[in-house]
Amino acid sequence: MTTFYDKLTKAVKSRDSWLCVGLDFTRDRLPSGITDSHLGCANFLKNIVLATQNYTASYKFNLAYFECLGPKGLHIMEEVLAIIPKDIIKLGDAKRADVGHSAEKYAQTLFEYYGFDAVTVNPYMGYDALAPFFAYADKGVYVLCLTSNEGAEDFQIPHQLYLKVARSVKKWNSRQNCGLVVGATHPEYVKEIRENSGPMPFLIPGVGAQGGDLAATLQHAYDGTSISGLVNASRSILYASRDTDYEAKASQAAYELHMQINEIRATLQS
Amino acid sequence: MTTFYDKLTKAVKSRDSWLCVGLDFTRDRLPSGITDSHLGCANFLKNIVLATQNYTASYKFNLAYFECLGPKGLHIMEEVLAIIPKDIIKLGDAKRADVGHSAEKYAQTLFEYYGFDAVTVNPYMGYDALAPFFAYADKGVYVLCLTSNEGAEDFQIPHQLYLKVARSVKKWNSRQNCGLVVGATHPEYVKEIRENSGPMPFLIPGVGAQGGDLAATLQHAYDGTSISGLVNASRSILYASRDTDYEAKASQAAYELHMQINEIRATLQS
Repeated sequence: MTTFYDKLTKAVKSRDSWLCVGLDFTRDRLPSGITDSHLGCANFLKNIVLATQNYTASYKFNLAYFECLGPKGLHIMEEVLAIIPKDIIKLGDAKRADVGHSAEKYAQTLFEYYGFDAVTVNPYMGYDALAPFFAYADKGVYVLCLTSNEGAEDFQIPHQLYLKVARSVKKWNSRQNCGLVVGATHPEYVKEIRENSGPMPFLIPGVGAQGGDLAATLQHAYDGTSISGLVNASRSILYASRDTDYEAKASQAAYELHMQINEIRATLQS
Repeated sequence: MTTFYDKLTKAVKSRDSWLCVGLDFTRDRLPSGITDSHLGCANFLKNIVLATQNYTASYKFNLAYFECLGPKGLHIMEEVLAIIPKDIIKLGDAKRADVGHSAEKYAQTLFEYYGFDAVTVNPYMGYDALAPFFAYADKGVYVLCLTSNEGAEDFQIPHQLYLKVARSVKKWNSRQNCGLVVGATHPEYVKEIRENSGPMPFLIPGVGAQGGDLAATLQHAYDGTSISGLVNASRSILYASRDTDYEAKASQAAYELHMQINEIRATLQS
């Protein structure tokens, strides 16, 4: 069996990249010339994938943006998933969790029905709400730890809940398929998260529009392996241009961020 | 505008009931004689609704069970939603939360696309991940507080995070449309949750198959209003019989639980 860490290692190596492109599209922000029909939306996202796939280790599908179009939005997601190259990680950013039997159904949905290689999950309900995801030994499970939004101050940071989550996920990682979601907007906390989690992949949102500090975050996130981090960018790539040159501009934005990340990676690995 | 609390008050009054029936079906547990086709699943759930609606203030749709069938599962959900009587609360048990813009999309999906009257959400990501739900002043938002599963011990109970959530939701309830999910498996904690939350509706899972203490839980949950609690039961009603008499048996199970709850309610209101 290919483990998730093996698959992630291959994806990172094949594109020499830690870039994750988030396909968070909305119908009212499509480039000019693209209609907001099912076909228009699907073609826009497929063109973004084709334009960026040389620099991208993972595509992240936040299910909110597909579900809001109803069942047909999920058909769009299926069409786009079908063209992602096999050696790139398909990440289902669903942030799910529920009591055991319901969590089993969510895990089935994401891993089996849609064929995601990895998902995001929410730790609030504890171990048994996540165990059905962890049970898929060949799939990755990124647990929300310290998120990139302001609300992280409400429950995650008081009493250092984010560190308790990091320590728990380290303990739960018996199949070596866990990771953590660690926002780039709090680089000062990333060091202690890594000290508590031990080696495991981090998914790092909050770099582009949210303005996190990329270099500091990656330095603290580095665990000595080639799969320490995936850096997510969504709107800065998807909407690099709202005009007919959107594919070229998305490609350029993905290339530039990938190069910026790799310059930082070079200092980590030296 | 009819507020959510108004709508819930009417639903409780019209059926004289605090019962919430959870439609957590699975294709491999349908009664004999029902095929596991789209039509079979939809008919089974519609028949359960028809058989139980006289005793039921709310139907709870846990999205996990519909999503696992792919886009066609969501069509089944739409068909069943369409036959719920207007004066009964349609509850979307989705346990969502995400950074602001994504949460907006989830709220749109559940409240606008599917037309739920209320939803469940997860507090881990804090206020700004929930604010887009709270913004719908005529819709209800039940925030996970103390869940009924074992994993509640992992993060909710240490440092009394569940009380911090209760106090926060009290503060965030400026539109009088918030509630809390409080499991019946921890009646000893329900009292202090109510002391910290002030009056607001509780959604109470964990009574049937999970074996919580109903009387103790409702005594502690009572806030002096007719909308203090909704008691959820799913499998004990849906699978009261696996044979051709499933409608009669579901009706009887719903009636009995509704009467058991009302006996307790009578002691609260005296």
